[in-house]
Amino acid sequence: MLEVLRIGHRPDRDKRMTTHVCLTARALGADRALVDTADRALERRLGKVTESFGGAFEVKTGVKWRPLLKATDATVVHLTMYGENIATWEGPRWEALRRSPHVIVVVGSTKVPGELYELADVNAAVGNQPHSEVAALAIFLYLLQSGDALRREMAGGRLKIIPQERGKRVLDLVQFGEVTPDGEGFEL
Amino acid sequence: MLEVLRIGHRPDRDKRMTTHVCLTARALGADRALVDTADRALERRLGKVTESFGGAFEVKTGVKWRPLLKATDATVVHLTMYGENIATWEGPRWEALRRSPHVIVVVGSTKVPGELYELADVNAAVGNQPHSEVAALAIFLYLLQSGDALRREMAGGRLKIIPQERGKRVLDLVQFGEVTPDGEGFEL
Repeated sequence: MLEVLRIGHRPDRDKRMTTHVCLTARALGADRALVDTADRALERRLGKVTESFGGAFEVKTGVKWRPLLKATDATVVHLTMYGENIATWEGPRWEALRRSPHVIVVVGSTKVPGELYELADVNAAVGNQPHSEVAALAIFLYLLQSGDALRREMAGGRLKIIPQERGKRVLDLVQFGEVTPDGEGFEL
Repeated sequence: MLEVLRIGHRPDRDKRMTTHVCLTARALGADRALVDTADRALERRLGKVTESFGGAFEVKTGVKWRPLLKATDATVVHLTMYGENIATWEGPRWEALRRSPHVIVVVGSTKVPGELYELADVNAAVGNQPHSEVAALAIFLYLLQSGDALRREMAGGRLKIIPQERGKRVLDLVQFGEVTPDGEGFEL
């Protein structure tokens, strides 16, 4: 079980950033995104992506993260630019994480309560420079899965992208035809 | 020379996303971010980060990307979920890119003009799933530099993060003291 927990979400101000956190979690093979503030619109938005493009990814919002992190048996990795640089991690460190049956990767928004540093098993920095939490999450999930996440097919979707050297090709598996996408990201 | 070109930037709507694109470009070792729409506030915001945390990263906005891409000798890589999945790339493909003296990595916003697919030398997908352009950029830059970007020190800044197992430690190299950051990302 691989989960991403987003804390400090403000539905109005962080709409796009948290959407991108969730899209990144899904595209990089997480099973579920948990978001602290209730946000049904966010759940619906990501639900549509999964309906269209497959997989079993879920978004759950309104999650009380303090009791969750206190009670969980999962290995909790908090991504923060103040933590230990993952570039210095040796193989066994990654292997231990990969063996863990349940990992929760936590990303904050602008402000992160100091308590989180204590609740986390690991405070990990994807480089010790000011960063984007989306970028940090992407690289971390990529490395955690040894790059396999990008190769994985997601079953059960209606649409399937056929990689092209130029232009766009998308199959509609329900209508057995091609669709013509008019932009990136299907207007997320 | 490694540059990131962001097109389709709308200063009001995309403020945070484009800031995160630029932060990612800087943290992952790009020399410069180019942004199509003029946005002095964005230049200033990133200028402050570089002033504080070092390096020689620059942001240039108001860049006319069509003439730029038509005239450049650089290898132009457009990141798009419709492109060839980089997970299928073999080593020589990466090596060729690494040997190129000038690479421009292009990321769009929601809508990308079809012309871009023709102007790019490579249309590359960081997985063929709906994604975040910030996430895609992060993984691409990471792999392009074989992970070295996260190890690099950035010289000349005023502040230096000292990686910690718990909590935050930041040195002020000018005042020779410690500062107490009160949140992630220094309120970007």
